[in-house]
Amino acid sequence: MPPTLRPLFVLGGLFVLTSLAADGVVAQDDAAGIERANAALAAAVASGDADAAVALYTEDGMLMAPNAPAATGHDAIRAAFQEMIEAGVGSLALTSDELEVFGDTAHEVGRYVLEAADGSHLDHGKYVVIWKRTDDGWKLHRDIFNSDMAAPGGH
Amino acid sequence: MPPTLRPLFVLGGLFVLTSLAADGVVAQDDAAGIERANAALAAAVASGDADAAVALYTEDGMLMAPNAPAATGHDAIRAAFQEMIEAGVGSLALTSDELEVFGDTAHEVGRYVLEAADGSHLDHGKYVVIWKRTDDGWKLHRDIFNSDMAAPGGH
Repeated sequence: MPPTLRPLFVLGGLFVLTSLAADGVVAQDDAAGIERANAALAAAVASGDADAAVALYTEDGMLMAPNAPAATGHDAIRAAFQEMIEAGVGSLALTSDELEVFGDTAHEVGRYVLEAADGSHLDHGKYVVIWKRTDDGWKLHRDIFNSDMAAPGGH
Repeated sequence: MPPTLRPLFVLGGLFVLTSLAADGVVAQDDAAGIERANAALAAAVASGDADAAVALYTEDGMLMAPNAPAATGHDAIRAAFQEMIEAGVGSLALTSDELEVFGDTAHEVGRYVLEAADGSHLDHGKYVVIWKRTDDGWKLHRDIFNSDMAAPGGH
Protein backbone atom coordinates (compact mmCIF):
# COMPACT_ATOMS: atom_id res chain seq x y z
CA MET A 1 0.00 0.00 0.00
CA PRO A 2 1.21 3.55 -0.56
CA PRO A 3 3.14 5.02 2.34
CA THR A 4 0.53 7.70 2.90
CA LEU A 5 -2.24 5.14 3.47
CA ARG A 6 -3.20 5.15 7.12
CA PRO A 7 -5.12 2.65 9.19
CA LEU A 8 -8.81 3.40 9.24
CA PHE A 9 -10.37 2.78 12.59
CA VAL A 10 -13.53 1.70 14.27
CA LEU A 11 -14.49 3.12 17.63
CA GLY A 12 -17.17 1.74 19.88
CA GLY A 13 -18.53 -0.46 17.11
CA LEU A 14 -19.09 2.49 14.78
CA PHE A 15 -17.08 2.80 11.62
CA VAL A 16 -15.50 6.22 11.49
CA LEU A 17 -14.18 6.79 8.02
CA THR A 18 -13.06 10.34 8.50
CA SER A 19 -10.28 11.79 6.46
CA LEU A 20 -10.71 9.38 3.57
CA ALA A 21 -10.04 11.64 0.62
CA ALA A 22 -11.78 11.15 -2.72
CA ASP A 23 -8.67 9.58 -4.22
CA GLY A 24 -8.62 6.93 -1.52
CA VAL A 25 -5.59 8.33 0.27
CA VAL A 26 -6.38 8.54 3.94
CA ALA A 27 -5.46 11.46 6.16
CA GLN A 28 -4.83 14.04 3.45
CA ASP A 29 -7.26 16.44 5.14
CA ASP A 30 -5.65 15.70 8.48
CA ALA A 31 -2.21 16.42 7.12
CA ALA A 32 -3.48 19.73 5.75
CA GLY A 33 -5.11 20.61 9.09
CA ILE A 34 -1.93 19.89 11.01
CA GLU A 35 0.14 21.81 8.47
CA ARG A 36 -2.18 24.79 8.94
CA ALA A 37 -1.81 24.60 12.71
CA ASN A 38 1.99 24.49 12.39
CA ALA A 39 1.88 27.51 10.09
CA ALA A 40 -0.32 29.33 12.61
CA LEU A 41 2.16 28.49 15.38
CA ALA A 42 5.03 29.91 13.35
CA ALA A 43 2.97 33.02 12.58
CA ALA A 44 2.11 33.49 16.27
CA VAL A 45 5.77 33.35 17.25
CA ALA A 46 6.76 35.69 14.41
CA SER A 47 4.21 38.26 15.57
CA GLY A 48 5.05 37.80 19.26
CA ASP A 49 1.48 36.72 20.01
CA ALA A 50 1.59 34.22 22.90
CA ASP A 51 -2.23 34.08 23.05
CA ALA A 52 -2.42 32.97 19.42
CA ALA A 53 0.23 30.33 20.08
CA VAL A 54 -1.46 28.91 23.15
CA ALA A 55 -4.82 28.71 21.35
CA LEU A 56 -3.26 26.01 19.15
CA TYR A 57 -2.81 23.69 22.15
CA THR A 58 -5.45 21.51 23.79
CA GLU A 59 -6.81 22.84 27.10
CA ASP A 60 -4.75 20.24 28.98
CA GLY A 61 -1.85 20.45 26.54
CA MET A 62 1.76 20.02 27.63
CA LEU A 63 4.72 21.94 26.27
CA MET A 64 7.82 20.00 27.23
CA ALA A 65 10.70 22.40 26.62
CA PRO A 66 14.29 21.60 27.55
CA ASN A 67 15.72 22.68 30.90
CA ALA A 68 12.35 23.40 32.50
CA PRO A 69 9.55 21.32 33.98
CA ALA A 70 6.71 20.55 31.59
CA ALA A 71 4.26 23.44 31.11
CA THR A 72 0.77 21.96 31.47
CA GLY A 73 -2.37 23.86 30.51
CA HIS A 74 -2.91 27.16 28.72
CA ASP A 75 -1.62 29.47 31.46
CA ALA A 76 1.69 27.64 31.77
CA ILE A 77 2.09 27.29 27.99
CA ARG A 78 1.34 31.00 27.50
CA ALA A 79 4.03 31.88 30.05
CA ALA A 80 6.53 29.67 28.21
CA PHE A 81 5.79 31.39 24.89
CA GLN A 82 5.97 34.82 26.50
CA GLU A 83 9.38 33.91 27.89
CA MET A 84 10.50 32.72 24.44
CA ILE A 85 9.28 35.93 22.80
CA GLU A 86 10.88 38.11 25.48
CA ALA A 87 14.13 36.17 25.00
CA GLY A 88 14.22 37.59 21.49
CA VAL A 89 12.94 34.77 19.30
CA GLY A 90 11.82 36.34 16.04
CA SER A 91 10.90 33.31 13.99
CA LEU A 92 10.17 29.62 14.35
CA ALA A 93 10.48 27.44 11.25
CA LEU A 94 9.01 23.92 11.39
CA THR A 95 9.78 21.07 9.01
CA SER A 96 7.45 18.10 9.36
CA ASP A 97 9.23 14.84 8.51
CA GLU A 98 6.73 12.21 9.63
CA LEU A 99 3.02 12.23 10.32
CA GLU A 100 0.82 9.30 11.27
CA VAL A 101 -2.89 9.75 11.94
CA PHE A 102 -5.00 7.36 14.01
CA GLY A 103 -8.52 8.67 14.16
CA ASP A 104 -8.56 11.67 16.48
CA THR A 105 -4.90 11.30 17.42
CA ALA A 106 -1.80 11.86 15.35
CA HIS A 107 1.91 12.01 15.96
CA GLU A 108 4.39 14.10 14.08
CA VAL A 109 8.18 14.05 14.03
CA GLY A 110 10.01 17.09 12.71
CA ARG A 111 12.75 19.67 12.97
CA TYR A 112 12.73 23.33 14.04
CA VAL A 113 14.89 26.38 13.55
CA LEU A 114 14.69 29.42 15.83
CA GLU A 115 16.01 32.77 14.65
CA ALA A 116 16.22 36.18 16.26
CA ALA A 117 14.31 39.13 14.80
CA ASP A 118 17.46 40.17 12.91
CA GLY A 119 17.65 36.74 11.26
CA SER A 120 20.58 35.49 13.31
CA HIS A 121 20.48 31.80 14.19
CA LEU A 122 19.46 30.96 17.76
CA ASP A 123 18.81 27.24 17.84
CA HIS A 124 17.82 24.22 15.79
CA GLY A 125 16.70 20.78 16.77
CA LYS A 126 14.02 18.12 16.59
CA TYR A 127 10.53 17.64 17.97
CA VAL A 128 7.71 15.17 18.45
CA VAL A 129 4.11 16.37 18.75
CA ILE A 130 1.08 14.29 19.73
CA TRP A 131 -1.91 15.96 18.10
CA LYS A 132 -5.59 15.66 19.06
CA ARG A 133 -8.51 16.43 16.80
CA THR A 134 -10.95 18.76 18.60
CA ASP A 135 -14.18 20.50 17.60
CA ASP A 136 -11.92 23.43 16.78
CA GLY A 137 -9.56 21.43 14.57
CA TRP A 138 -6.27 19.70 15.26
CA LYS A 139 -4.47 20.93 18.40
CA LEU A 140 -1.03 20.25 19.84
CA HIS A 141 -1.51 18.01 22.87
CA ARG A 142 1.99 16.88 23.79
CA ASP A 143 4.87 18.94 22.37
CA ILE A 144 8.46 17.99 23.16
CA PHE A 145 11.65 19.23 21.53
CA ASN A 146 15.35 19.52 22.08
CA SER A 147 18.35 21.15 20.48
CA ASP A 148 20.86 19.59 18.08
CA MET A 149 23.42 22.14 19.27
CA ALA A 150 26.05 21.45 21.91
CA ALA A 151 24.93 22.63 25.34
CA PRO A 152 26.46 25.81 26.75
CA GLY A 153 29.33 24.79 28.99
CA GLY A 154 30.20 21.88 26.74
CA HIS A 155 27.84 19.34 28.35
CA MET B 1 -16.33 4.54 28.02
CA PRO B 2 -13.58 3.74 30.47
CA PRO B 3 -10.41 5.75 29.95
CA THR B 4 -8.41 2.60 29.21
CA LEU B 5 -10.63 1.70 26.24
CA ARG B 6 -8.73 2.28 23.01
CA PRO B 7 -9.89 2.59 19.43
CA LEU B 8 -9.86 -0.72 17.65
CA PHE B 9 -8.78 -0.46 14.05
CA VAL B 10 -9.24 -1.96 10.65
CA LEU B 11 -6.36 -2.08 8.22
CA GLY B 12 -6.60 -2.85 4.54
CA GLY B 13 -10.15 -4.10 4.94
CA LEU B 14 -9.16 -6.69 7.54
CA PHE B 15 -10.43 -6.39 11.09
CA VAL B 16 -7.53 -6.56 13.46
CA LEU B 17 -8.82 -7.00 16.96
CA THR B 18 -5.50 -7.41 18.66
CA SER B 19 -5.00 -6.53 22.27
CA LEU B 20 -8.63 -6.98 23.28
CA ALA B 21 -8.26 -8.60 26.67
CA ALA B 22 -10.78 -11.07 28.04
CA ASP B 23 -12.31 -8.45 30.32
CA GLY B 24 -13.01 -6.20 27.36
CA VAL B 25 -10.34 -3.68 28.22
CA VAL B 26 -8.27 -3.03 25.15
CA ALA B 27 -4.50 -2.74 25.13
CA GLN B 28 -3.82 -4.40 28.48
CA ASP B 29 -1.37 -6.81 26.80
CA ASP B 30 0.16 -3.92 24.90
CA ALA B 31 0.69 -1.95 28.08
CA ALA B 32 2.37 -4.98 29.64
CA GLY B 33 4.59 -5.46 26.59
CA ILE B 34 5.69 -1.83 26.60
CA GLU B 35 6.25 -1.95 30.35
CA ARG B 36 8.49 -5.00 29.85
CA ALA B 37 10.47 -3.20 27.15
CA ASN B 38 10.96 -0.20 29.43
CA ALA B 39 12.14 -2.49 32.22
CA ALA B 40 14.56 -4.15 29.79
CA LEU B 41 15.88 -0.74 28.75
CA ALA B 42 16.49 0.21 32.38
CA ALA B 43 18.20 -3.15 32.99
CA ALA B 44 20.42 -2.69 29.91
CA VAL B 45 21.56 0.72 31.13
CA ALA B 46 22.13 -0.57 34.68
CA SER B 47 24.34 -3.39 33.36
CA GLY B 48 26.14 -1.11 30.88
CA ASP B 49 24.97 -3.24 27.97
CA ALA B 50 24.54 -0.97 24.93
CA ASP B 51 23.75 -3.96 22.68
CA ALA B 52 20.84 -4.96 24.88
CA ALA B 53 19.57 -1.38 24.87
CA VAL B 54 19.74 -0.97 21.10
CA ALA B 55 17.93 -4.28 20.54
CA LEU B 56 14.84 -2.64 22.04
CA TYR B 57 14.68 -0.11 19.18
CA THR B 58 13.30 -0.67 15.69
CA GLU B 59 15.92 -1.17 12.96
CA ASP B 60 15.23 2.38 11.71
CA GLY B 61 14.65 3.75 15.20
CA MET B 62 15.60 7.28 16.19
CA LEU B 63 17.01 8.32 19.55
CA MET B 64 16.58 12.07 19.80
CA ALA B 65 18.77 13.10 22.71
CA PRO B 66 19.35 16.74 23.69
CA ASN B 67 22.34 18.65 22.33
CA ALA B 68 23.14 16.18 19.56
CA PRO B 69 21.68 15.38 16.16
CA ALA B 70 19.19 12.53 16.13
CA ALA B 71 20.79 9.07 16.23
CA THR B 72 19.08 7.03 13.50
CA GLY B 73 19.47 3.26 13.20
CA HIS B 74 21.07 0.69 15.47
CA ASP B 75 24.71 1.71 14.97
CA ALA B 76 24.06 5.34 15.87
CA ILE B 77 21.79 4.42 18.79
CA ARG B 78 24.38 1.96 20.13
CA ALA B 79 27.02 4.70 20.01
CA ALA B 80 24.72 7.04 21.94
CA PHE B 81 24.16 4.44 24.66
CA GLN B 82 27.87 3.65 24.84
CA GLU B 83 28.54 7.35 25.31
CA MET B 84 25.92 7.51 28.07
CA ILE B 85 27.41 4.47 29.82
CA GLU B 86 30.96 5.79 29.49
CA ALA B 87 29.78 9.13 30.91
CA GLY B 88 29.02 7.28 34.13
CA VAL B 89 25.28 6.67 34.02
CA GLY B 90 24.56 3.85 36.43
CA SER B 91 20.79 3.71 36.36
CA LEU B 92 17.83 4.89 34.32
CA ALA B 93 14.43 4.97 36.01
CA LEU B 94 11.35 5.41 33.81
CA THR B 95 7.88 6.44 34.95
CA SER B 96 5.20 6.01 32.31
CA ASP B 97 2.43 8.59 32.73
CA GLU B 98 0.39 8.14 29.54
CA LEU B 99 0.06 5.37 27.00
CA GLU B 100 -2.24 5.25 23.99
CA VAL B 101 -2.24 2.28 21.63
CA PHE B 102 -3.47 2.40 18.03
CA GLY B 103 -3.02 -1.01 16.47
CA ASP B 104 0.68 -1.51 15.83
CA THR B 105 1.62 1.98 16.99
CA ALA B 106 1.57 3.48 20.45
CA HIS B 107 2.75 6.65 22.07
CA GLU B 108 3.92 7.05 25.62
CA VAL B 109 4.60 10.14 27.72
CA GLY B 110 6.72 9.77 30.83
CA ARG B 111 9.50 10.94 33.08
CA TYR B 112 13.05 9.68 33.61
CA VAL B 113 15.71 9.89 36.30
CA LEU B 114 19.39 9.20 35.60
CA GLU B 115 21.73 8.35 38.45
CA ALA B 116 25.43 7.59 38.61
CA ALA B 117 26.65 4.18 39.77
CA ASP B 118 27.09 5.57 43.28
CA GLY B 119 23.45 6.65 43.38
CA SER B 120 24.12 10.35 42.96
CA HIS B 121 21.59 12.24 40.87
CA LEU B 122 22.66 13.13 37.32
CA ASP B 123 19.54 14.28 35.53
CA HIS B 124 15.77 14.06 35.41
CA GLY B 125 13.27 15.06 32.80
CA LYS B 126 10.46 14.02 30.47
CA TYR B 127 10.14 11.90 27.36
CA VAL B 128 7.83 10.89 24.53
CA VAL B 129 8.25 7.53 22.80
CA ILE B 130 6.51 6.37 19.62
CA TRP B 131 6.38 2.57 19.84
CA LYS B 132 5.93 0.08 17.00
CA ARG B 133 4.75 -3.49 17.38
CA THR B 134 7.14 -5.84 15.57
CA ASP B 135 7.36 -9.63 15.19
CA ASP B 136 9.74 -9.40 18.14
CA GLY B 137 7.37 -7.41 20.35
CA TRP B 138 7.00 -3.68 20.98
CA LYS B 139 10.08 -1.61 20.05
CA LEU B 140 10.98 2.02 20.61
CA HIS B 141 10.73 3.75 17.23
CA ARG B 142 11.01 7.45 18.04
CA ASP B 143 12.48 8.35 21.44
CA ILE B 144 12.86 12.01 22.45
CA PHE B 145 13.60 13.42 25.88
CA ASN B 146 14.87 16.53 27.61
CA SER B 147 15.92 17.62 31.06
CA ASP B 148 13.85 19.46 33.65
CA MET B 149 17.09 20.84 35.09
CA ALA B 150 18.50 24.27 34.29
CA ALA B 151 21.11 24.10 31.53
CA PRO B 152 24.77 24.44 32.51
CA GLY B 153 25.74 28.05 32.00
CA GLY B 154 22.31 29.24 33.08
CA HIS B 155 20.63 29.02 29.67
